[in-house]
Amino acid sequence: MYPKNTWYVAATPDEISDKPLGRQICGERIVFFRGEDDTVAAVEDFCPHRGAPLSLGFVRDGQLVCGYHGLVMGCEGKVACMPGQRVRGFPAIRSFPVAERHGFIWVWTGDASLADETKIPNLFWAENPGWAYGGGLYHINCDYRLMIDNLMDLTHETYVHASSIGQPEIEESSPVTKTEGDEVTTSRHMENIMPPPFWQAALRGNGLADDVPVDRWQICRFSPPSHVMIEVGVAHAGHGGYDAAPEYKASSIVVDFITPETETSIWYFWGMARNFKPEDAALTDTIREGQGQIFSEDLEVLESQQRNLLEYPDRQLLKLNIDAGGVQARRVIDRILAEENANRSKQ
Amino acid sequence: MYPKNTWYVAATPDEISDKPLGRQICGERIVFFRGEDDTVAAVEDFCPHRGAPLSLGFVRDGQLVCGYHGLVMGCEGKVACMPGQRVRGFPAIRSFPVAERHGFIWVWTGDASLADETKIPNLFWAENPGWAYGGGLYHINCDYRLMIDNLMDLTHETYVHASSIGQPEIEESSPVTKTEGDEVTTSRHMENIMPPPFWQAALRGNGLADDVPVDRWQICRFSPPSHVMIEVGVAHAGHGGYDAAPEYKASSIVVDFITPETETSIWYFWGMARNFKPEDAALTDTIREGQGQIFSEDLEVLESQQRNLLEYPDRQLLKLNIDAGGVQARRVIDRILAEENANRSKQ
Amino acid sequence: MYPKNTWYVAATPDEISDKPLGRQICGERIVFFRGEDDTVAAVEDFCPHRGAPLSLGFVRDGQLVCGYHGLVMGCEGKVACMPGQRVRGFPAIRSFPVAERHGFIWVWTGDASLADETKIPNLFWAENPGWAYGGGLYHINCDYRLMIDNLMDLTHETYVHASSIGQPEIEESSPVTKTEGDEVTTSRHMENIMPPPFWQAALRGNGLADDVPVDRWQICRFSPPSHVMIEVGVAHAGHGGYDAAPEYKASSIVVDFITPETETSIWYFWGMARNFKPEDAALTDTIREGQGQIFSEDLEVLESQQRNLLEYPDRQLLKLNIDAGGVQARRVIDRILAEENANRSKQ
Repeated sequence: MYPKNTWYVAATPDEISDKPLGRQICGERIVFFRGEDDTVAAVEDFCPHRGAPLSLGFVRDGQLVCGYHGLVMGCEGKVACMPGQRVRGFPAIRSFPVAERHGFIWVWTGDASLADETKIPNLFWAENPGWAYGGGLYHINCDYRLMIDNLMDLTHETYVHASSIGQPEIEESSPVTKTEGDEVTTSRHMENIMPPPFWQAALRGNGLADDVPVDRWQICRFSPPSHVMIEVGVAHAGHGGYDAAPEYKASSIVVDFITPETETSIWYFWGMARNFKPEDAALTDTIREGQGQIFSEDLEVLESQQRNLLEYPDRQLLKLNIDAGGVQARRVIDRILAEENANRSKQ
Repeated sequence: MYPKNTWYVAATPDEISDKPLGRQICGERIVFFRGEDDTVAAVEDFCPHRGAPLSLGFVRDGQLVCGYHGLVMGCEGKVACMPGQRVRGFPAIRSFPVAERHGFIWVWTGDASLADETKIPNLFWAENPGWAYGGGLYHINCDYRLMIDNLMDLTHETYVHASSIGQPEIEESSPVTKTEGDEVTTSRHMENIMPPPFWQAALRGNGLADDVPVDRWQICRFSPPSHVMIEVGVAHAGHGGYDAAPEYKASSIVVDFITPETETSIWYFWGMARNFKPEDAALTDTIREGQGQIFSEDLEVLESQQRNLLEYPDRQLLKLNIDAGGVQARRVIDRILAEENANRSKQ
Repeated sequence: MYPKNTWYVAATPDEISDKPLGRQICGERIVFFRGEDDTVAAVEDFCPHRGAPLSLGFVRDGQLVCGYHGLVMGCEGKVACMPGQRVRGFPAIRSFPVAERHGFIWVWTGDASLADETKIPNLFWAENPGWAYGGGLYHINCDYRLMIDNLMDLTHETYVHASSIGQPEIEESSPVTKTEGDEVTTSRHMENIMPPPFWQAALRGNGLADDVPVDRWQICRFSPPSHVMIEVGVAHAGHGGYDAAPEYKASSIVVDFITPETETSIWYFWGMARNFKPEDAALTDTIREGQGQIFSEDLEVLESQQRNLLEYPDRQLLKLNIDAGGVQARRVIDRILAEENANRSKQ
């Protein structure tokens, strides 16, 4: 139950730099590779000759060569050639709309005729030299919506990430949630509190005192199908908080692209975009490592939550004020799913 | 197919000394923890907020705090509080009758209104300073009844435990089996035989000659749902065997609590209670280690037997005289299961 | 869907030299052991007493002793004795026709009354001192027919085994396939080509120049149910190729016995028989190691091909000229399966 007529992040460019990548997305087994002119291509990971995964093969001159008997697959899913064979009558396999944009490879697993690259989210920071980005990829065995819930209710930081970004003040201040069109925003502002360890380090990294009270903010923005961008930051208290001048604050954007693999598993692309010291590659590595550590703490919770929900499929979960972000995001998703269903019925 | 209106051993106290313990028993996912006044508590391992296992959380002031968003669960399954929330309308989760007695934590997974702590078996040796106990826990993938069969027919010692407690004389002497009420007893007495290695060590440990003929006995007592206490021992031959005076013998009680996890897996609490040198903690450790080694030899047999039985569900097994203990124990279990079924139908 | 009234290779003698061997073949769990006079025996791996696998036991005086309670099983599946028991009324278990021949242990999993040892393939090289054999065993999770396809279409060598036996000339020369009775032969002859690394080594091992053009041949012979013998070799070019005199060539027989474990897994007995330097045991080891390495390259392809086919059960695969060997072999198998079905219906 995931939208299909939409763009998902499928991979990062380094994953296909020297060989094809086989990855299941939205239930589809897909092989990604660099075709002619290094343009990324995506076709079914199924050789029409004998059914071997094409991802076991290699790329030659922008075409994908099957590693079993050498069938050569073109970027559009049509067989280009095969040693000793006339391939004109060979069945084509499915190709998927795919695009490389903002440092990610995006795929559209639904109706290809509806694929529109202008609908790929505009990551304003991605090509901006004033910003730096670092991130990683986790595979998690849970419904993609559990990850959305997780990110749209950051009170879990106090418990799951107690030693890094969590602090009691998070759950003491109520979030404000609103939906505008397809976008859901949950905001929380905490004033005059002491920064937790992660933000102390960020303040220091930014040349600011780390032992003084700060104003802290978290603004989570969900957009369909399952992207969550979170503006996070702290400013020395009393200088305007979120609106403080740059010299008083450390802030960044937590980037989360959640791509369903199956109904109960995801590819979770996480990262952080920052607009301070963007040229400092060592800092990028340090932040990536810290974030990777923190985000790995969610894995056990999410996977065991998923197991419990499968075990007790009829239980109703609570929808509290802190859950409003996830609840409203699910409403948007449900509407999109209903629209996709209605369109399918019409055809 | 296990009795539910009964007490099972769920855990040992050390397992919940510093954090909650999640354990599936009779198909129920349960979290055990120390509540107010350190009294043990047991509730469903399912947070009513978002379904995360409560066992991932921690105990604070005798209440269980969910490790995901901080919901605080009380011992009776009622939500005590949650940061920033009014919890009065929150749904309760199931709690389970639970008791700490004789060095074990006992749970009742059936109808709570029938739970009666006086029905917990009276382990006379447990609080007796003249006795010492050491034991351990194994997880085994088999029907709990296969473990009962195993313990009620000790001829397997000759084959499975050939190097420690097995000896040909076991299978050469017929057991006597009888059922009295719900208790099944299988007794075997062997006279004037040489003691096997385990008993040689026990004789030595007890200050007795280990190279002389002995009389040996094994008295297996099954009581529902799946407890098997086995009186075992040797006495220098000709001094009365089982009834010999203490200075001629080494004896102990093999303690077996078999707790179903699912239809085809168990938690097996094994141990040994002895009434010689009870203050010798090093001896307790030595015996525990030896027994653990011996009992681990049963695991592969039981798990592969279970796989075979699942593969050939229609095969009838033999019921020989040596199997009488297991057969009669199953008859008791079947009667209890039938009674539970009948009572359920009436309601 | 595999023939059952036929001989399969079950094991090699070293596998039962000191203890029984439990192995599932054609869906049957079987235990193999050396009975009286060291004759190999095969019975169900299921003790009629309590269902434990007999393969966990041991052999004593040509009989199989159950490792649980000591039931003694005879070679024909009849219980010989059991300590303290009269076994006359004990149910027999199934025994399987089994034979040791040509360095392999063969089993017949179908109707025992049809088992005819004269139908065991005659491996003329096996007892011939002019030949040497070395081989190994792989377990692979795939339908046995995928392995037959693999071996009957050696164009895959160019891709899967590019660094050892593969070379482009394989796929440039068309194979000739024909069926005679139940045997399918696919032949390929390549003339005046440079030998790939494996054959360079073989030429050197045979005292021949390895840097000159050769004629190379591959003659794959399938016979039911799933045996594939492949004559392979090279001769210095221009001396008659396959028919060249021994002093100009290096050749051998690739031996493949494919034994279904289940519908989607196999025991793959692979090896090589050669008629040069047969007394050179070190060379046998070197070849075995090299072949084992090469053949292990097929595992990932076959297992992932199988997964893809299970995922897309309705896809039709292509049947090209290079696939003719596999296609015709499947036709033979299908006819045999139809005959077995028809005979079963008649009964």
